[in-house]
Amino acid sequence: MSVIEQRPPEPTALEGVAHATWAGQAQGLQQLSVWRQSLAPGAGTPPHQHDCDEVVICLGGEGELHADGQRQRFGAHSTLILPRGRVHQFVNVGAQPLETLGIFGQSPVLTRQPNGAPLALPWLS
Amino acid sequence: MSVIEQRPPEPTALEGVAHATWAGQAQGLQQLSVWRQSLAPGAGTPPHQHDCDEVVICLGGEGELHADGQRQRFGAHSTLILPRGRVHQFVNVGAQPLETLGIFGQSPVLTRQPNGAPLALPWLS
Repeated sequence: MSVIEQRPPEPTALEGVAHATWAGQAQGLQQLSVWRQSLAPGAGTPPHQHDCDEVVICLGGEGELHADGQRQRFGAHSTLILPRGRVHQFVNVGAQPLETLGIFGQSPVLTRQPNGAPLALPWLS
Repeated sequence: MSVIEQRPPEPTALEGVAHATWAGQAQGLQQLSVWRQSLAPGAGTPPHQHDCDEVVICLGGEGELHADGQRQRFGAHSTLILPRGRVHQFVNVGAQPLETLGIFGQSPVLTRQPNGAPLALPWLS
């Protein structure tokens, strides 16, 4: 049992993507990972998928979820349900940073390109 | 893929415990559950354990984690790491509501008393 500090997201090698892993393999977890991210205005993630279920809690900003050939808007007070193995992409469509908490059903989080090839990420999950 | 609204916690049959399930079996998830809870000043959960790992993100207030025979203080900006099968209890030791996001590595969340007997909860997880 441990109590740890929530660190703010820090810039990464992915342009416009700031990240902090709040919980994951470094804390001995195998079933869960929690990522705190901040996406700069105009920035987006690449299209990708995970080997586990994901829930995104939006904390602020205005985003668009691109998935299943559709675009869905979301913002503060939105929760996104992203079943495993489904390709998705987030884009910040607002003027402020898009602040999110990404929750995953495994640790480390296995992330793949749309064609299924592994996608290496510049942080420890 | 779905975008849903974050509902505020509502009073439950457990005194001082307000709850909203933000993600879980109702959304088709098996690997994850996310609970938004608010604990009134002076209130606490009973001692309990889960069959899955848990991560608690504290959003506000001042709490105490009772586990492993110790008491650890936590507050806004704290993350709690609670490995599966370890008995724990939360108590609000502040003057304001203790606001938390509870993240679990299964859905539904199997909750037990310290002796291992199942503990029924008054919400759908």
